[in-house]
Amino acid sequence: MNAEPPERVGLGELGERGLIRRIRRSAAATGAAPGVEVGIGDDTAVLAVPAGHKLLATTDLLIEDVHFRRISAAPSDIGWKALAVNLSDIAAMGGIPRWALVALAVPAETDVESVDAFYAGMAEAAAPHGVTVVGGDTSVSPGGWTVNVTLLGIHPGEPRLRSHARAGDAVAVTGSLGASAAGLHALEIGLDRARDAGLTGARLAEITRAHLRPRARVVEGRWLGQAPGVHAMMDCSDGLATDLAHVCRESGVGARVRLDRVPVAAAAHETARALGGDAREWGVRGGEDYELLLTCDPAAADRLVAGLAEATGTALTVIGRIEGTAGEIVFVDADGSTVPMRGGYEHFHG
Amino acid sequence: MNAEPPERVGLGELGERGLIRRIRRSAAATGAAPGVEVGIGDDTAVLAVPAGHKLLATTDLLIEDVHFRRISAAPSDIGWKALAVNLSDIAAMGGIPRWALVALAVPAETDVESVDAFYAGMAEAAAPHGVTVVGGDTSVSPGGWTVNVTLLGIHPGEPRLRSHARAGDAVAVTGSLGASAAGLHALEIGLDRARDAGLTGARLAEITRAHLRPRARVVEGRWLGQAPGVHAMMDCSDGLATDLAHVCRESGVGARVRLDRVPVAAAAHETARALGGDAREWGVRGGEDYELLLTCDPAAADRLVAGLAEATGTALTVIGRIEGTAGEIVFVDADGSTVPMRGGYEHFHG
Repeated sequence: MNAEPPERVGLGELGERGLIRRIRRSAAATGAAPGVEVGIGDDTAVLAVPAGHKLLATTDLLIEDVHFRRISAAPSDIGWKALAVNLSDIAAMGGIPRWALVALAVPAETDVESVDAFYAGMAEAAAPHGVTVVGGDTSVSPGGWTVNVTLLGIHPGEPRLRSHARAGDAVAVTGSLGASAAGLHALEIGLDRARDAGLTGARLAEITRAHLRPRARVVEGRWLGQAPGVHAMMDCSDGLATDLAHVCRESGVGARVRLDRVPVAAAAHETARALGGDAREWGVRGGEDYELLLTCDPAAADRLVAGLAEATGTALTVIGRIEGTAGEIVFVDADGSTVPMRGGYEHFHG
Repeated sequence: MNAEPPERVGLGELGERGLIRRIRRSAAATGAAPGVEVGIGDDTAVLAVPAGHKLLATTDLLIEDVHFRRISAAPSDIGWKALAVNLSDIAAMGGIPRWALVALAVPAETDVESVDAFYAGMAEAAAPHGVTVVGGDTSVSPGGWTVNVTLLGIHPGEPRLRSHARAGDAVAVTGSLGASAAGLHALEIGLDRARDAGLTGARLAEITRAHLRPRARVVEGRWLGQAPGVHAMMDCSDGLATDLAHVCRESGVGARVRLDRVPVAAAAHETARALGGDAREWGVRGGEDYELLLTCDPAAADRLVAGLAEATGTALTVIGRIEGTAGEIVFVDADGSTVPMRGGYEHFHG
């Protein structure tokens, strides 16, 4: 009469309906966000957008071996990140995230524990923001894991757009950059090798977490989105260079960035020293740090830096100015010399 | 100086930004739906839900070799169907479809014409309903095509839910069933063989279109959703047997269906005669016809049948009654004898 090890249930035994019942129970367990009149289980979710609020909607597709590798990302990490990247988009508008629709395709032989872990990771990322899963879709996949999350949010006022940068604005970024790319680098060369090269377990945990479980700046986005003087805002997902180029293109302006002022994460510097690599490059081009990039009235910059630190504990660093030729971003060093810098990640380009 | 054949541009040359520019132009060309304050190009779409309206949200994931085959479905068909299946979900609530978010992953070597055709097919399905693409995501795929569409709609009153069937209700279905499964059967055995077996080109076009380019019953859903006496409603996507089981489960009721009254499409009968196959089986278990299944006050049935025909030209057929043991669906023939009948399609089950 020994205890049996827990039985590994395949999705084949559970079936799609069984899986949907599990997802529904898991969504119900996290407690409903305001405004959910009908959640999982009907043809559509039925939601109530509060009077006077705008609706925000964003979607992100994550594909195995493109956006993540199963060898380094646990199912719970995949769930976390799939929600976090969408939270970051809502944060960049200064909005309040609310309702998620989650589509998941996995191979037929996937065990139910992995799927449960995926939804648990997502619920962990969702809980601090009161986000509820209100719908979705499930499917077998003939290849690897595929996840699509659509996140809906609300906004009581005017969302902060990419297109609102003005000549003379200060350019600023929250937190620090480069830890995610450092984490990816460590995951790709292997954690054992990274440890052998002298990175502590704590440092490794910090940078791999930055890559696998990024924290969206939702609270910061709410504060900055309501603060007078903030003009354009977006999230830093493709890398500072690429994302600032988006702001400049949409606003019809140019920018000058002081590379020595870019807040490169201490962990990125340490990783670069231990493993080789260029921490500044990770900070400017690496992407996936999910910090917020904004432009603001230069007269408001000091007030915003102090106010954000006081309200949220998060740093805001002025790194440059909106100026020069439209669409052109000039990176300069402390001595004013120009540094050539290409953009960040773009799909389809080799 | 002969005319050169049009150059085939790969996505690798165009890049992700170039692709997004194309999608944005294509979305702009279809004209904006009401309520789009910010469409493609920012971190999120910004949308205005009209006062007094509820928000409806649904998402569907379509994966190559699970939901469609490239050998039979052209890129424009894939785009059409990806939107149509979501339109059908909004229709089943009696709602008004409005805004779509479209995520597309394709192999890096995909040519731009195919991607353009995908969005053109989607725009063709969207246009009659005034639906606009307001956001999305693009990615390379290491496998086949993957499409996720999230469709948002609005509803001025009370959406029709699956859970509202009551004992004694009549069960009814719009249009006819089985043509989609007949079309799939013809595509799988090959159109040449189907033609050799005596199916005319027109018939083949009808059934393959039913499978590849289903028409969602949006207008019918609006009419039925507002008509007094309609209780539960859902769309028939997984097959009548499976979908009626959903209604019964959600409503805590049972049902009795007269198989001889199920409106099996003439094209399905003809296909079954020519190619072999069971048209009634296709009608009851085939799925993907995207008709609407509803339950209503039996006293209202005649009025609903006549009213829907007059308002939309679409037939509504009473096929059974809500009665018996909760969760149990009994299928009977004209003579009252019970016919065993399994459910429709379910993912993960072999």
